[in-house]
Amino acid sequence: MELVEEHHCFDGKQATYTHDSHETGTVMRFSLFLPPRESPPLLVYLAGLTCTEETATIKLGAQRRASELGLALLMPDTSPRGLDLPDEHDDWDFGSGAGFYIDAMQPPWSNHYRMQSYVVRELLPAVSTKFAIENDLVGIWGHSMGGHGALTLALKYPEVFKSVSAFAPICSPTNCPWGQKAFSRYLGTDQTVWANHDAVELIKKGYKCPPMLIDQGEADPFLTEQLGLDLLQKAVETTGQSATIRLHPSYDHGYFFIQSFVDDHLDHHARYLIK
Amino acid sequence: MELVEEHHCFDGKQATYTHDSHETGTVMRFSLFLPPRESPPLLVYLAGLTCTEETATIKLGAQRRASELGLALLMPDTSPRGLDLPDEHDDWDFGSGAGFYIDAMQPPWSNHYRMQSYVVRELLPAVSTKFAIENDLVGIWGHSMGGHGALTLALKYPEVFKSVSAFAPICSPTNCPWGQKAFSRYLGTDQTVWANHDAVELIKKGYKCPPMLIDQGEADPFLTEQLGLDLLQKAVETTGQSATIRLHPSYDHGYFFIQSFVDDHLDHHARYLIK
Repeated sequence: MELVEEHHCFDGKQATYTHDSHETGTVMRFSLFLPPRESPPLLVYLAGLTCTEETATIKLGAQRRASELGLALLMPDTSPRGLDLPDEHDDWDFGSGAGFYIDAMQPPWSNHYRMQSYVVRELLPAVSTKFAIENDLVGIWGHSMGGHGALTLALKYPEVFKSVSAFAPICSPTNCPWGQKAFSRYLGTDQTVWANHDAVELIKKGYKCPPMLIDQGEADPFLTEQLGLDLLQKAVETTGQSATIRLHPSYDHGYFFIQSFVDDHLDHHARYLIK
Repeated sequence: MELVEEHHCFDGKQATYTHDSHETGTVMRFSLFLPPRESPPLLVYLAGLTCTEETATIKLGAQRRASELGLALLMPDTSPRGLDLPDEHDDWDFGSGAGFYIDAMQPPWSNHYRMQSYVVRELLPAVSTKFAIENDLVGIWGHSMGGHGALTLALKYPEVFKSVSAFAPICSPTNCPWGQKAFSRYLGTDQTVWANHDAVELIKKGYKCPPMLIDQGEADPFLTEQLGLDLLQKAVETTGQSATIRLHPSYDHGYFFIQSFVDDHLDHHARYLIK
């Protein structure tokens, strides 16, 4: 791991690192905030389409409350970088910046676009070891595509993630244009495979995760076509998965919305991670 | 004035506007946060070298506490844009992004680089009128070059600015390379003219402003060569200008430092602006 930059911030350290990833076969970047506390719990933040590890580091506004609570913040990138696969950089909602936190099964993506294994099996263990994180106190949260990532990874890995929340998540990628475009190219045409990476479908199958906190702006232009929050609402009601879903009038899809509720999310995670 | 974008944020509105400036002869951009309060007081934030109106909008983290306190936040750009004067874009510390909040006296800069008059005499009255700001409750703050701007404009216009603070300000531009480079080209060679735009020199001449709050990181790489905080310390001690100057170990010059103390600055301004 190589330190790119480090800044004192709210009595803690906000740093950016690079490392060679064997899952993606590329050099990956991530951001890490360490609070002024020994062996802190860790929150993994997954960002949305077009973002990098820097986006939430700058725009989320989470460091203040994370420092007070004693939570570390890990922010990975949203896809491999430095490749030049066919069409990889053509669209903002597919390829670079749009890894969807799944392991691709179709070439050429399957050799590199392994963001699920990268985050859960490579980056998280590496960071937990190097920075003396409390291994069994890890939570996950995210925004939009990263909200999809947070919900699905929490459902798939309940032994890893002890808390979960999301801002304006893509709740059911199999039922929206963003998800259908990405899944058809990363995973192929078999929609039974797609269902393994769809929070609504996983919940309907009986997968469980810690109680969810979900915030959604009612002025979000993507709410109806892309996000599928009504499908998630039905799935949690039917199955008894615990979820607090809050709708906020006037708020849209961006970081000015997210930062307005970031303290509530940190407090939510702290209830499960701070002993 | 033309609205570029607007986002609901902490129960208020974070917006960006453009307008034609007669002071600079260009189209200028500014950012404005309006809290959920009728006729709020207004804080003018002046950013540093290379910044735009967007920098602090994204990185300062001021909206949360400003919303709670009921303070509006006005963030102007740091220079005229859209010109192509000789050498204007060659250096990051002169010309575009480096207006120094003074009115240039040397051609070709004197026709456009009028950031002092732009901020105080054009933008502030225009914003106060259009957005029902409390006209007689205006404060000013800034960072680095913008800290110089905040201190000097507070000293020059005590009837306008009822509160003042700065993060890592350039305290004495006449005594540092950044200031000498800019002032020699904007103002000419007469250093008695430069002294009219130097916070330390103004204080020594007997100019007064409201009690200053100044925060400075001790790991700031510009502290010794560029910022001149020791000169300001001496000037306020000699003259009785009220100033709280705080040094913070480990913090550097960037926005991870600034955001760590932004709530303290908002509370400082609120003591003078919130009745």
